[in-house]
Amino acid sequence: MSEPPLASIKIVLVEPAGPLNVGGIARVMKNMGLGQLVLVNPHCDPLGPEAQQMAVHAFDVLSQARTVQTLPEALEGCQRVVATTARQRRLQVVTQPPKQILPWLLTDSAALIFGPEDRGLSNEELYYAQAFLQIPTSPDYAALNLAQAVTICCYELRQCSLVPLDNPPTETKIAVSNLPQAELAPFQQMEAFYQALELTLLEIGYLYPHTASARMQKLRQLFNRSQLSTQELAMLRGMIRQVHWKIQAN
Amino acid sequence: MSEPPLASIKIVLVEPAGPLNVGGIARVMKNMGLGQLVLVNPHCDPLGPEAQQMAVHAFDVLSQARTVQTLPEALEGCQRVVATTARQRRLQVVTQPPKQILPWLLTDSAALIFGPEDRGLSNEELYYAQAFLQIPTSPDYAALNLAQAVTICCYELRQCSLVPLDNPPTETKIAVSNLPQAELAPFQQMEAFYQALELTLLEIGYLYPHTASARMQKLRQLFNRSQLSTQELAMLRGMIRQVHWKIQAN
Repeated sequence: MSEPPLASIKIVLVEPAGPLNVGGIARVMKNMGLGQLVLVNPHCDPLGPEAQQMAVHAFDVLSQARTVQTLPEALEGCQRVVATTARQRRLQVVTQPPKQILPWLLTDSAALIFGPEDRGLSNEELYYAQAFLQIPTSPDYAALNLAQAVTICCYELRQCSLVPLDNPPTETKIAVSNLPQAELAPFQQMEAFYQALELTLLEIGYLYPHTASARMQKLRQLFNRSQLSTQELAMLRGMIRQVHWKIQAN
Repeated sequence: MSEPPLASIKIVLVEPAGPLNVGGIARVMKNMGLGQLVLVNPHCDPLGPEAQQMAVHAFDVLSQARTVQTLPEALEGCQRVVATTARQRRLQVVTQPPKQILPWLLTDSAALIFGPEDRGLSNEELYYAQAFLQIPTSPDYAALNLAQAVTICCYELRQCSLVPLDNPPTETKIAVSNLPQAELAPFQQMEAFYQALELTLLEIGYLYPHTASARMQKLRQLFNRSQLSTQELAMLRGMIRQVHWKIQAN
């Protein structure tokens, strides 16, 4: 693999609060051949003096960074999304080390999400991803600095991109669809589907407003894990529409 | 391999000037199970507020860090020493990526040296090492931040230490001696040898004071590459003594 797939991978920082971190992240992204930085509701000035001081010769990455207000906006157009997590949570998600999951991101529409310095990603934020990355650490002190976590991932992304093509990313241990990857449903279509599904499930009384969020997370897990194609998604949406129509018609 | 070899590897910082870097390095060392930080003539306060702020829960690594005035002091007792370098130099040294050379450091008396933020390691400093590490980067921006370079190396050291024992570090592509590693000559013996050699070469008029430094660097390369055993070193020192005796006797 050559540079282009690396250069198109989005590094998404959710509510970063440390300008030194953001600057350091821009620097290591450029060091490793990445260029797409997306900041979700940043709690610091990504173009201020501290960020610039740490970015050094990567000010272009900072100045070209996209700032959005919500994580779904950041992920628009993405087909493969990996979220990072430090803790073993009570969730039924399987985390994978960088070497194992990152090759899977070497495509044209991929994103890697990092949570805020103080809390990491919330469950809701995690479930926008199809796979979950955890950097192996000592049990004595597991919490990595944000910029250092991004450093390790950018380094490994570059390492993965340098492996010869006879060791292709499809070997990554994720339940990859049999369909050609071009047909994978993009993020915004998946989100539209989840919204339609939730509305319909509320409508039919399967979900209640106070349980909807937790239950939808489980459904997201289920569907994200299966990596839907656009055709499969169209089929599911057809089913939802049909349910809705049936209720209205009664 | 389990934790002990990791915990005993020395991370040696030559003249670090950024307290944020030193603090961040302490943190990632603890994250990755390393604990031996050695500071050579630091140009900042490793226990000041900025270093502490970045170290967070790794203040113990900072407070237990050893401060010395010279690189040879830092390396005393080490049998395996790797130096990091960012640039392709005019030197005849072969640099290796982290994955390839770091398994070789998983022993009881190893050190990994990093240069100052602004200049990296000098040639003289480089030649205290037997092997040379270079982190692969984009040609567009090769200079890594010091703390981020250490982060990548600590992460890879932990990765190497987690590989199963059927993939032992001896596979590392370095010209490893056939002798059991316990017999490798320790650093201070090598230094004593180089000093005796230089004195004798000056004495015999092979070296001149103005050329000694450059020539000794080439000799260091030669001997370090071959990784002398204590027995071999004793033999060489015997030869030097004999030359000296012969001159005095004449």
